[in-house]
Amino acid sequence: PASPEPDPRLDLTFTRTIDVPREHVWAAWTRPEYIKQWFTPAPWRTVDCEIDLRPGGAFRTVMESPDGQQFPNVGVYLEIVDNEKLVWTNAMTPGWRPANIDGDNDFAFTAMIELESKGEETVYTATVIHRDEEGRKRHEAMGFYEGWGAALDQLVALARTM
Amino acid sequence: PASPEPDPRLDLTFTRTIDVPREHVWAAWTRPEYIKQWFTPAPWRTVDCEIDLRPGGAFRTVMESPDGQQFPNVGVYLEIVDNEKLVWTNAMTPGWRPANIDGDNDFAFTAMIELESKGEETVYTATVIHRDEEGRKRHEAMGFYEGWGAALDQLVALARTM
Repeated sequence: PASPEPDPRLDLTFTRTIDVPREHVWAAWTRPEYIKQWFTPAPWRTVDCEIDLRPGGAFRTVMESPDGQQFPNVGVYLEIVDNEKLVWTNAMTPGWRPANIDGDNDFAFTAMIELESKGEETVYTATVIHRDEEGRKRHEAMGFYEGWGAALDQLVALARTM
Repeated sequence: PASPEPDPRLDLTFTRTIDVPREHVWAAWTRPEYIKQWFTPAPWRTVDCEIDLRPGGAFRTVMESPDGQQFPNVGVYLEIVDNEKLVWTNAMTPGWRPANIDGDNDFAFTAMIELESKGEETVYTATVIHRDEEGRKRHEAMGFYEGWGAALDQLVALARTM
């Protein structure tokens, strides 16, 4: 379905034009060996990644803090349009079972990456929609803009080497 | 993805062979005018239905109790394989926002209808997978088997008239 207009109460979104072709951006988002190189702002790292690129398939990552603590995440892909749109959520688990989301640092979200070509560049839009305002606020307070922005810098640096 | 084996702690499932072709069963599940005729065991009725048959599209129904109280439900389609497999959940809302599921009579689930042809008949399997054991227990105690069984009787009666 077409993406609705973001709701500022519930959603976080930003758009940036980046000077790499969208095929490289798509590769960076959909290949585990690339995800591990850019997905987590340094000095954190992504030490493991599994991608089953189909609706209902798993998107798993393991992030590691500078002191070596590991944080596994699992999501499920919802929509995949090659080189254009990638949508996943942490509200479902592989096989379509609804996820159990609780805990003080957890919130339900769906994330969308949308890519548009503009000459040799790519208009990159990231949107994260949350179940409720509390989830949006918590995600924003965790540093959504800084974190996703720094990760995108890393993605661009990687994409330039492709 | 292939359906995993049901987990008796979390899932409810039954299989019945019915003497109607699977194309008619599929039509009964995917057209609002049919849903209204069979979906709710009498004397309850389904008084409204909206179907946007694509991944992320809405499956809305309004059930009405014998004393005229209305109960709206909204789900989202996850997987659609014509005449074979229909998967939807109440854990997401149209546009892929995670649903807010709370309230004493509410629980998160994903439902799957699988159809297999056997001569002129159809092997009909309904599976509902829940987020947690509490959801499965609540759904079972609400009369899942009786309710879905009675509704299927109504579906078969309707499909015979197609």
